[in-house]
Amino acid sequence: MHDISWDTVFTNVRLATMVTGGEAYGQTTADCLAIEGDRIVWIGRQADLATVSLHDSCDVVDLEGRWMTPGLVDCHTHLVYGGNRAEEFEMALNGLSYEEIAKRGGGIISTVNATRDASEEELIKASTPRLLESLKGGVTTLEIKSGYGLDVEDEIKMLEVAKHLGEENPVRVQKTFLGAHALPPEFKEDSDGYMAKVCQTMLPTAHALGLVDAVDAFCEKIAFSAEQVRILFKKADELNIPIKLHAEQLSNLHGAELAANFQALSADHLEYLDEAGVKAMAKSGTVAVLLPGAFYFLRETKLPPLDLLRQHKVPIALATDCNPGSSPVTSPQLVMNMAAIFFRMTPEEALAGFTRNGAEALGLLDQIGTLETGKQADLAIWNIDHPAELTYRVGSAPLYKRYFAGQAA
Amino acid sequence: MHDISWDTVFTNVRLATMVTGGEAYGQTTADCLAIEGDRIVWIGRQADLATVSLHDSCDVVDLEGRWMTPGLVDCHTHLVYGGNRAEEFEMALNGLSYEEIAKRGGGIISTVNATRDASEEELIKASTPRLLESLKGGVTTLEIKSGYGLDVEDEIKMLEVAKHLGEENPVRVQKTFLGAHALPPEFKEDSDGYMAKVCQTMLPTAHALGLVDAVDAFCEKIAFSAEQVRILFKKADELNIPIKLHAEQLSNLHGAELAANFQALSADHLEYLDEAGVKAMAKSGTVAVLLPGAFYFLRETKLPPLDLLRQHKVPIALATDCNPGSSPVTSPQLVMNMAAIFFRMTPEEALAGFTRNGAEALGLLDQIGTLETGKQADLAIWNIDHPAELTYRVGSAPLYKRYFAGQAA
Repeated sequence: MHDISWDTVFTNVRLATMVTGGEAYGQTTADCLAIEGDRIVWIGRQADLATVSLHDSCDVVDLEGRWMTPGLVDCHTHLVYGGNRAEEFEMALNGLSYEEIAKRGGGIISTVNATRDASEEELIKASTPRLLESLKGGVTTLEIKSGYGLDVEDEIKMLEVAKHLGEENPVRVQKTFLGAHALPPEFKEDSDGYMAKVCQTMLPTAHALGLVDAVDAFCEKIAFSAEQVRILFKKADELNIPIKLHAEQLSNLHGAELAANFQALSADHLEYLDEAGVKAMAKSGTVAVLLPGAFYFLRETKLPPLDLLRQHKVPIALATDCNPGSSPVTSPQLVMNMAAIFFRMTPEEALAGFTRNGAEALGLLDQIGTLETGKQADLAIWNIDHPAELTYRVGSAPLYKRYFAGQAA
Repeated sequence: MHDISWDTVFTNVRLATMVTGGEAYGQTTADCLAIEGDRIVWIGRQADLATVSLHDSCDVVDLEGRWMTPGLVDCHTHLVYGGNRAEEFEMALNGLSYEEIAKRGGGIISTVNATRDASEEELIKASTPRLLESLKGGVTTLEIKSGYGLDVEDEIKMLEVAKHLGEENPVRVQKTFLGAHALPPEFKEDSDGYMAKVCQTMLPTAHALGLVDAVDAFCEKIAFSAEQVRILFKKADELNIPIKLHAEQLSNLHGAELAANFQALSADHLEYLDEAGVKAMAKSGTVAVLLPGAFYFLRETKLPPLDLLRQHKVPIALATDCNPGSSPVTSPQLVMNMAAIFFRMTPEEALAGFTRNGAEALGLLDQIGTLETGKQADLAIWNIDHPAELTYRVGSAPLYKRYFAGQAA
């Protein structure tokens, strides 16, 4: 207890540290937490605090018994996009077939067109309300993927917008290059040609601009084959960029195993994952990112293999998958609840999914994701009586206050 | 165009009036709406407005092309209660059986105990955050049921709290007496005895205090039989109180038909409703109130008979069913989305469910539920490009501003 140049010390707080190996939710007997600069520097008890002489400028904040968790991590989103798909949603409910909707300009290509047509400023204006909703849910780190540009210029525009959102708002934004999201109209019938462009031009250009924290792809019959994805992953490896993969969402192409073989940070969706895939992920330390919002919105019935993931100790993260076509969702609490209702995940697993395991899925567990000294002071403080409430309430965010990098925000 | 003593006129607004018989969503070519006092007094076009000389004090509000809908009506909630059931939710997900949970004090009786133990002030404090969430979703009229007191004093306490919430907040609260919600522990094995007390003492006492806008009951194998409910309805008829009924949620006891025979305002839940019930409701003008939040939270698979309801032109309302045991939900938008995803209701049906038909389910359609001159100026103004967005977004409330009885609130 030598360092007393703390900026803030929270007292009378209940801590769900989300550190593993101890009590549920990483609860401790500590009821105080101190911040210096952007770091958590001390976690301890009120009794010990009494022996410290704090600096005059140290802000002592009595949290009146409220719960504190790590700031939430939404590790899989497509939050930057132009337009929305509400009218297409309405057409489907009015009985139009997917073919008819596609003919009227619906589907992912409508979002690609709207995103290509939008300026950076327009994309910022469209995406900021979604980002602010996310922050109101307690999020302090958010991954945003490109993937609606599908050419050099527009993929870079999306990543620049993501970067800008992180610079202008109190949140860390991780930028993932998802050039291999869908086939752009100009490469119709030539997916190999498009993947070559992704690998030879788009990814290296975006990477050289410092816009790529990770590389992702959509490995699916309706998107890219495992063989095509392998070419992309080799390129990512060459450039030393971490990888992620949309895998086993609609069928089993063994994408998760492929990703694991490249030491991927995460494989995401995973409804059709089999035991071989689970074992490969366990071996490589690849996080399973489950996306109940898309499961719900697409009325999927095939459940991801929760018991196998638990049995093989694969870390399970959750994310909103915020996107206009299959998961127009921004609320972590709603996704946590859906994980419980649909997947029978426990409230503790759900919270770990949006904290510790979300951080791991982004390769950031050494910096965020738990309440521990030395980690960044990204904190969420809640008006709740028990951490299970964050999952039990359907989409409510009883957020009292959020701290990002040590600052109330 | 003689009356120019308007208090507020909104210009440059797109109106989803929700009036039937014309365009989808009751859209009109009008782009202005005027308020005087607590009433809508004029709906017209900017061009006509130019010919009017407004009073100096009239507030002209340019809504910049935003959409306006009637203020939302949440016509079925149990929003006032003590405690919450998060830990019981967690126990179930951790594999405890319902018997075990009941032994540990779970189930509806835990809410009855917490509600009985709470003072009026404590219930107000517990319920207000839920009410405020509801208002943020654009709600201007909210029904609140008793039913966790189950004795004279505590049922009255709940209704007094509901009344207080309506007096202290910019929202109309309709109070429904639901003494016949569950059997209180002190009447175990004597449900006839309890129903007699409900009819002879509880309902008349609450009614004499002016606390009962409607009477409701839970007609189900695990609650009260159709015969018992009939006794209650006779009493309600005698007192000239409108009736509603929780019917056909878990099985078909023909409660909806019973309710219809008493000219009920609504029958609610209705997953197990059959065609005879639908026909009876159509004949009596009884509204079908569907509750997708409970359908979701209880993992129900039996769908309410949407096609039959449409075919027989039964008005379909939606509501949150906000309650701690089976629908801890406050967001109308989330419920609208669930109605689309689970029940395949269209965005227009979903919005009608929370406006026109919600008002009808409370017997208030002559006062609220559509944008028409003469109706109360309960308005919701939205940051959206199309009314379908209110249903398409999963649980987001893009509310720009809410007006209750002519006042921004």
